[in-house]
Amino acid sequence: MPHINVNAIKGVFSADQKRQVIEKLTDAMVEIEGEALRGVTWVTINEVESGDWGIGGQALTAGNVKAMQQAAE
Amino acid sequence: MPHINVNAIKGVFSADQKRQVIEKLTDAMVEIEGEALRGVTWVTINEVESGDWGIGGQALTAGNVKAMQQAAE
Amino acid sequence: MPHINVNAIKGVFSADQKRQVIEKLTDAMVEIEGEALRGVTWVTINEVESGDWGIGGQALTAGNVKAMQQAAE
Amino acid sequence: MPHINVNAIKGVFSADQKRQVIEKLTDAMVEIEGEALRGVTWVTINEVESGDWGIGGQALTAGNVKAMQQAAE
Amino acid sequence: MPHINVNAIKGVFSADQKRQVIEKLTDAMVEIEGEALRGVTWVTINEVESGDWGIGGQALTAGNVKAMQQAAE
Amino acid sequence: MPHINVNAIKGVFSADQKRQVIEKLTDAMVEIEGEALRGVTWVTINEVESGDWGIGGQALTAGNVKAMQQAAE
Repeated sequence: MPHINVNAIKGVFSADQKRQVIEKLTDAMVEIEGEALRGVTWVTINEVESGDWGIGGQALTAGNVKAMQQAAE
Repeated sequence: MPHINVNAIKGVFSADQKRQVIEKLTDAMVEIEGEALRGVTWVTINEVESGDWGIGGQALTAGNVKAMQQAAE
Repeated sequence: MPHINVNAIKGVFSADQKRQVIEKLTDAMVEIEGEALRGVTWVTINEVESGDWGIGGQALTAGNVKAMQQAAE
Repeated sequence: MPHINVNAIKGVFSADQKRQVIEKLTDAMVEIEGEALRGVTWVTINEVESGDWGIGGQALTAGNVKAMQQAAE
Repeated sequence: MPHINVNAIKGVFSADQKRQVIEKLTDAMVEIEGEALRGVTWVTINEVESGDWGIGGQALTAGNVKAMQQAAE
Repeated sequence: MPHINVNAIKGVFSADQKRQVIEKLTDAMVEIEGEALRGVTWVTINEVESGDWGIGGQALTAGNVKAMQQAAE
């Protein structure tokens, strides 16, 4: 307790970024709950296939998300 | 808000049917909640491996589901 | 199979609207998958407390969502 | 009702063990709820990629879990 | 790992039955995975409001489920 | 995309701490994915009743978790 689940589209995050998600979200949670709960703080990353995520009825691919990320750089 | 998640067995729905799931479930939801919420209405499709779904303790494969669909036609 | 879960903020939808969510999402799903699967099409509505939903780091209450709905009318 | 979802790391359980998970968890549930609900007792197994599970901020692979299982034998 | 989540309708299971769900599902899981994983085997019980569960488009209340249980006795 | 869901026991976190969870987890996620995705980064906090969380088959209450937090201070 707690269990943090990150739902994302496959192909958006690299293996290295997923390691960072695990580390940084755990650290952020532990800052609030205290170090005593670190060992029982779990993070899972659950990925759906590219295209299997809709926003307002429009299917979103990993490519669409990457384009959003690059447009902003 | 809301986030609609569809849990299904991999191999039952084609890519085209999954696009329809995203569109039609969003439209059905928006009919109830109003157009103002369309942009924050998300649909995800989360698939488990064929066989990793049990009903009454019996494992169900994509083939079993397709047989149910065809038997009814 | 399938199991459709609708994640929402408590207080946004009335009991009557939640009945409509169950009916209309089931109907939309059955249109795609076929009537043979109606009996194994489940819809659940999982509500979180008002304020326990963040978009871009901003907590969203049931009141905020209702204001969005009314502004658009 | 109920729907039991088992979240696990891909590669830890064999296909045969996943069949056992479906059978044994259903049987355990039915012992409590009664046989009348067996037909509406669902079990799904949702697997995340090896490494996409963090405990205390440390990524856990299928290999790590298997090592824990073997160390104890 | 694993995390077993039981999705149910509020009011169907008593506090005592929910304790049994935690114990018996954990025991069933440990039988398959081995005692080494007991400490990292989690069970959560997530309840939705009575009526917020649809089967085939029909809303199901805690009372409906209890009636199914009693009819079978 | 992404949707971060925090599963916790009711009564462990105050309303103020839950606001911090939304802010800090969003910030941690945005540090990895980039600011372009902030607006589509959602955090929900899903709470189960005290006692409805088992670790190794032992039910855990909000009081148990608070005792762990205080023992470590």
